Parts: sequence; C-alpha cells; structure tokens
Amino acid sequence: MVGSVDVLAHDSSINGTMKQWPEDFSSMTIMRDHVTLTIGENGIGNGVVQNGTENGERKIVLGRNIHTTCLEVTEPDIDDEVTGEREAYMAGVLAKYKKSLTERTNYHLGYPYNLNFDYDALSQLQHFSINNLGDPFIESNYGVHSRQFEVGVLDWFARLWELEKDEYWGYITNCGTEGNLHGILVGREVFPDGILYASQESHYSVFKAARMYRMECVKINTLWSGEIDCDDFKAKLLCHKDKPAIVNVNIGTTVKGAVDDLDLVIKKLEEAGFSQDRFYIHCDGALFGLMLPFVKRAPKISFKKPIGSVSVSGHKFVGCPMPCGVQITRLEHVNALSRNVEYLASRDATIMGSRNGHAPIFLWYSLNMKGYRGFQKEVQKCLRNAHYFKDRLVDAGIGAMLNELSSTVVFERPHDEGFVHKWQLACQGNVAHVVVMPNVTIEKLDDFLNELVQKRAVWFRDGNCQPYCIASDVGQENCLCALHR
Amino acid sequence: MVGSVDVLAHDSSINGTMKQWPEDFSSMTIMRDHVTLTIGENGIGNGVVQNGTENGERKIVLGRNIHTTCLEVTEPDIDDEVTGEREAYMAGVLAKYKKSLTERTNYHLGYPYNLNFDYDALSQLQHFSINNLGDPFIESNYGVHSRQFEVGVLDWFARLWELEKDEYWGYITNCGTEGNLHGILVGREVFPDGILYASQESHYSVFKAARMYRMECVKINTLWSGEIDCDDFKAKLLCHKDKPAIVNVNIGTTVKGAVDDLDLVIKKLEEAGFSQDRFYIHCDGALFGLMLPFVKRAPKISFKKPIGSVSVSGHKFVGCPMPCGVQITRLEHVNALSRNVEYLASRDATIMGSRNGHAPIFLWYSLNMKGYRGFQKEVQKCLRNAHYFKDRLVDAGIGAMLNELSSTVVFERPHDEGFVHKWQLACQGNVAHVVVMPNVTIEKLDDFLNELVQKRAVWFRDGNCQPYCIASDVGQENCLCALHR
Repeated sequence: MVGSVDVLAHDSSINGTMKQWPEDFSSMTIMRDHVTLTIGENGIGNGVVQNGTENGERKIVLGRNIHTTCLEVTEPDIDDEVTGEREAYMAGVLAKYKKSLTERTNYHLGYPYNLNFDYDALSQLQHFSINNLGDPFIESNYGVHSRQFEVGVLDWFARLWELEKDEYWGYITNCGTEGNLHGILVGREVFPDGILYASQESHYSVFKAARMYRMECVKINTLWSGEIDCDDFKAKLLCHKDKPAIVNVNIGTTVKGAVDDLDLVIKKLEEAGFSQDRFYIHCDGALFGLMLPFVKRAPKISFKKPIGSVSVSGHKFVGCPMPCGVQITRLEHVNALSRNVEYLASRDATIMGSRNGHAPIFLWYSLNMKGYRGFQKEVQKCLRNAHYFKDRLVDAGIGAMLNELSSTVVFERPHDEGFVHKWQLACQGNVAHVVVMPNVTIEKLDDFLNELVQKRAVWFRDGNCQPYCIASDVGQENCLCALHR
Repeated sequence: MVGSVDVLAHDSSINGTMKQWPEDFSSMTIMRDHVTLTIGENGIGNGVVQNGTENGERKIVLGRNIHTTCLEVTEPDIDDEVTGEREAYMAGVLAKYKKSLTERTNYHLGYPYNLNFDYDALSQLQHFSINNLGDPFIESNYGVHSRQFEVGVLDWFARLWELEKDEYWGYITNCGTEGNLHGILVGREVFPDGILYASQESHYSVFKAARMYRMECVKINTLWSGEIDCDDFKAKLLCHKDKPAIVNVNIGTTVKGAVDDLDLVIKKLEEAGFSQDRFYIHCDGALFGLMLPFVKRAPKISFKKPIGSVSVSGHKFVGCPMPCGVQITRLEHVNALSRNVEYLASRDATIMGSRNGHAPIFLWYSLNMKGYRGFQKEVQKCLRNAHYFKDRLVDAGIGAMLNELSSTVVFERPHDEGFVHKWQLACQGNVAHVVVMPNVTIEKLDDFLNELVQKRAVWFRDGNCQPYCIASDVGQENCLCALHR
C-alpha cells in the first residue's frame, strides 16, 4: 500500500467530451510527482508503485521518468579517436550487456517469444539501411528495400489463411499492436459508425485503438477459460442493432491463451440479425495465428469465412531479433484506407509509412528453413511440453489451467516478486503464466518447477501465508487453494 | 494519361459521416481491378499508374497487389537438412541481394537517409530478441530489453532540446511517422476538441493522424520556400477562436526542407488571442530536428518555448539499419495518454507497445561515438556540399533552390523516369530533390550532375521537349525555364 501520494482523477474536461471511450479510461486514476521507489507487499522495486484497490486487484499507477537504469551518452574526448579509449569503453559496455542478455534469455518463461533462432546468415545485411516505405506491392523510388522478401512472406500467410493471391493485401508490421491498430482501422473505415466489440480479455491494444480512433467500444464478458462469452456477445449486439459491428476475435488471449470460437461469433452475429455487409471481424492472432493451423481439431482461421483481417506477430512463434508482425486483409477493404502520396511514388495504406526492411528477411528466412512441416513439429512439441508442465504443477499441488488449444499454462501467482522477476513471468491478479515456446525445454520447465516447489515450502512454512485462490480466474476445478483443493 | 480504367469515387457513406477529414480525402479517386502496368508520359513501370488531373499534377492511383518482385517461400525437401541444398540456395539468394543493396546504396540521393554507418560492434546482439515493452522508464518483467540505452539516448535529446530530466517523457519510436502520430495524439488528449493546423507541405503522416484520430484539420498555405504562411495561419486561427489549437510545426518539410518559423507561429497564436493553455505545438523534426541545433543563426527548438513535443527520425541524419525515431514530450502531457496495464507491469503511453530494442542501441552507439562535435562537423559538411551542388546546378542552367537552413536541394524534375529511378530521386509535381546527407560526397554530386547534364542534352536536343517550369514550386527567381531564365 502506498501512502501520501496525490491521486488525481483523470482530467474531467477529457471525460466530458470523450464518452465513447471504454469505461475503464474514465475511472482511471493518475498519480504523479510524489511517487517514490516504494516496494509494496508484492511490489517490484523498479519505479512501478502498486496501489491497492477496492477489489484487492493490484493496479499500476503512473510513476515518473525514473532513471533506474541509464547508460548515459557522453561526449567523446578530442583525442579519443587516436587513443582508442572510447572504442574500448564501448566494447566493455557491450560485452557486459551481452552477458546480461544471455543470462536473461536463459531465464525466460513468461512471454510468448521464441528466443531460439539463428540468423547468422543475415548479419551481413546489417550494413544497409533497408526501408520498405509505404505499400509493399508498389515500389517507391527508394531502392534499398526488401519488398521481394516481404511479398513472399505475405503470400505464404495469405495461403495459410486461405485468401487468394489477387484478393489479399497486407504488410509486415512492427508488432502485434500495429496489426490490431490496422485491422480495427480498416474496420472503422469500412463502417465509420460501427461499434467495436471485444472481450474483456483482449489485448490492451484493442482498447487503445478504440480510444485513438474515437470509436464506441463494448466490452464482452469472458468465460473462466478466457474465451469470449458468446451469449453476452449476442445480448449486447441486440442492444445496438442500429449500428454495424466491428468485432475483435482473439486467436489466443494474452493471459490465458484462450481461443475465441470464431464460428460461434459469426453464428451469434447472424442470430442477432447482422448480415455480412454489416459486420467486420478482425482476428488478433498474435501468437496462435501461426500455431492453430497446425493443431488437429482446432477451429480454422480462414478468409473463406466472413472475416476482414488477421494479424500475427513475427517475433513470437517464429522468433525474430526485434518485434514484427504480419497483417493480412482483403484488398477490397484496404482501398477505404488508402491515400495518394506522390512524394513516395506510393499510396500509403500502412500505419507507419517507413518500415523496417530487415524484419521481412528474418521471417522469409525462417519460413524457408522450417516450412510447414517444421512449424508443425514445433507446435506439437510446445503443446506436449505444456501438458507435461501443467500436469507436474497439479501433481505438486499447485492450481493450474491449460486451455485445450494452447501452450500457455496459467497457475497460482508466486508470492515472491524476485522469483517472478528472475523467471520473467507475466502476472495478472492472482495468476501468473508460462508460455511454452519452442525454446522452452522439459529441462527448463523442471528447473523452474523444482525451484517453485522449494520456494513455496518457504513461503507457506509458518502458515502466515496461503496459496492464492485462483477460482475466480480459472474456475474452481483448477484451483488448489485451501478452500478448493 | 490512363485509358479504360474504373475510377470510383470514394465510398460516399464514408464521406457522409467523416466531414472532419482533410478535404483531399473526400475528393480522392480510387481505381482498381483493371490496372495494368501502364507506363504513362512520366510513368514508372512498377505497378504505379499515373493519372492526369485538372491542374496537370501527377496522381498515383491504387494498383492492386501486383507481384512484380517476389521471392517465394517454398517448402523444404525432407532431405534438405542432410544435403544442405536449402542452405546453399538461401546463401545464393542472399549474396545476390547483398550485391543489389550495395549498388542501390551507391546510387542514392533522393531520400534523407544517412547510409554511412558502421555498427559492426553491435552485430553480436542480433542473436537476442530485444524488446522494450511499454514505457521506457518503468521496467516490465521481460528482461531482454535495452531500456538503459534507450533512456541514455532520450536524456541526450531532452538536453539538446532543453527540457529537464525530470520534466520530460519520451521513447524510441519505429519511425518519424510514429513520432507525429504520438505528438498529435498527445495534443488531442490534452485538447479533445482542438483543431489540428498544419501547412499543406507537412508530411503526409500529419494528415493521416487527423484522419485516424477523427480530428478537425485545417490546412495552411505555404510560401514558395515551403514555409508555413503565418498570415494565412493567423487568419484561419481567427475563424476558429472557440476551439483550442493543435499545431504541427515543420522543422524541415519533406520536399523542400523548409523550416517553419516557430517563434512567428507562437507570436501569431498570441496575436489571435490563444493563451498558452489553449494551444499545443508538435514539432515534426524528422530530419532537421537533429541538424538545426548545430546550424549557426538557426531558430532554436527548445522546450523553454511553449511547445508540447518534438520528434526526430533516427535513421535519417544519424543513420541506422532500420527506421526509428525519438519522441520527446512533456511529462505532464503524457499522463493524459497513459493507461494501466497490469499484464506488462507497465503503463503504456506509447503507440506500439512492443518496441524494437536494437534501435536504441544503434542510436546510443552513434551518439557516443560522434558526440555533439561530430554531428556539428557533419552538419557543416552537408550544408557546404548542398551549397556547392546548388551552385553547380544553376551554373549548368538548371533551375534550383536551396533553403537557407537546409541541405535539401530542389530542382527541375528530370524527364526520364529511368534516371530518376537510378538515382532514387524523390519527385513531386515538376520538381525533384537531392538531400545531401553525410554519405553524399562532392564526387557523388559531380557524377550525378555530369550525368544529368548529358541526359538533358539528349532530352532537349530537338526542341520537342522543354525543361519544366518550376516557378510555381520554388518561385520565379529560382526557375530557369524558357520563360523565366
């Protein structure tokens, strides 16, 4: 708990004119100025101050730009070039940094990034300023680009999601968020007065988009699995029958890896009287967009269904040195977004304009080396390892859940933030998760579990402290707290 | 001129509800389906079809996703791993690609990218998935980040633009566009009903922002130099006195490198009765934001003046393998934009969320190696070379203009699109430009000029063809067409 801080209500003039924002924006509290490096009950000493709220949830409140870690830029001495001192200093900093990256890469379980990649063959390209300006399909005058690789990658994904070569448009984005920003923007341009529907467990970028684009946004409840509650969805559709629907469908939610039932979403739209010319569906496939096609019995993401766009991250299942993503949409829709820009000799239907030309080459390289078969093997391995891990957690008396189509294992939040930090777990409320990616081996999972079991013995030794109840997060049957075990 | 194509008016339902868009969106024409690789009078055979308009300007119209260049992704054979055939194929593709990149890098004059950099010391980091999620100043649980470098770079820029360490907020963006999107969004959050003012020669991302954010946007005329016309600005301010003003100030326009007079803009706001709590200024310093501080007699970009944000690109004057940028704003403003996101253990006031962690290291490395002194030297060299080039053009009878604070030389558009393409010139209307960056030497400028002079002798030999008049682009005194020489 934090004492003596100014908690300011969000500027009321903003609330007054922005009624269309999602509800939680208006109730957001902002704290500033007096923030110190307080470490609360479960606080992390990193400038994030955690504040208790009525329902006991932890909330992050604004810090300021606290310089806990900063490598200052310093002016070189005049004779540095001669003495080589500067270069030596830089080499020292980088060597130390590389060591810490190696260590941090080894203890990494909480984020859905495949840290296992080998792009040595591509290091020769780092000398070039590769920039894919504007539209991937229309050359600009700038010659140092990688459009040929980009289009190859886009074709591959369009094929994966069953959209014809001459009917799709897309581009390589900077991250999953850009995919969502683009998909939802296309939806809004197709239906300018459409309402955005998204389950409450959607990625935060979806609600950010609603705010940026000044769209009305309706949050849908979720089942305890994390899936969208389609009954609630239909009920809310029926309340807003007069306006078109723009729907975000999660192909893997961030926290629980839950896959929304696309077919059921479409069915509910039909039942509520929305014909296909009155809705637009964006599929946020950040992680699972690339995994699901290789899972037997998984619902199919396909443009043969009435969907408008699919996005997937490139740095997640594929693995890439920097964030990137793939966005595929229907060519007919994207024209609503385009814009004549003679300067580039290119139209611009992207969000970003200038785009990282290295990312498409990384993706192209991986897709070529692994192929469908390679991805299938990796997906199977991840799902197998995730099941193994979940079973071992439960065997050890730790409440845990694993959705059927997912490699995200959700379990009781550890009581020690140092441990959370060490293994880089992502936490929300009373749960944490481990995302089993291709670089996460059985050995690593065992190491983690053994350490967790040892730590728990210490945390819960004298009975002052109890395992969290996670029934409200993942359902009673998955909870092993004192009450539900 | 293009014949037999479908020119469709922009969907009227969109126009109907989106009155606040900049005018040119509503008059935009879209062409699809029947587009072929037509090469018009000045067309480029790259899927861009150019269409004449009333005033004779060239307009790009939409093509479709024409696969002129595509490196297909193919499934590896089962025995590829054994035979090494796949690896050999990839190596071949990459070697060829590298050769073309080298060639294209050598013939590059039109885009403001410094292609001269040496980041060999950093290639060891390509093995890591470096991701700066969320806010640079608040650590997330993900450990493989480069926040310490990022904050060092941000501090450097905040100092350059005179904002105290504890009063600024910022982050490393993916490109100049993201900086503009962020600055304008902050402005809108501060003044939800504010009107966006931007000169008509502002970068297209400014108008894209207005459209994305559903902001009313007023375009201001420019002087022939490309600078904002402050009299027109004041007149338009007076028409909208009831609403706050969000102003985009160009610190270097895209085409002519014109620097808007920040002090005069502020003065006009005051004269029109806008007190400091009723306007927000975003400075788009994509290229010159880093050059201007080193130019004597240049107007100062400084947070001691009532500005809200400044953005600059990192891949332009600094030089970087991929697009990136720096965004600095006032801490007090950014709180309007923030959002609690427990999942990341971080608030999210960025546009993108996941962010390239390599870009800050590239920038940090360059700033440390060059220092203020290094940049000053490079800026002086660029301005000197630009003056040399402009003088040589005029000596050769070619109409040209160079703004005082700029290294962007604007001149008569070459008549041969092959030549334009070879030298990667950016063209608009009747003018082209060369941006003299640190990698552009006197020798390269001489080579270009000699070739241009030879080509012109051919183009204008039989008198069928005349140099373009560029008086309306850059003023009569800079035009050397038949009429004005």
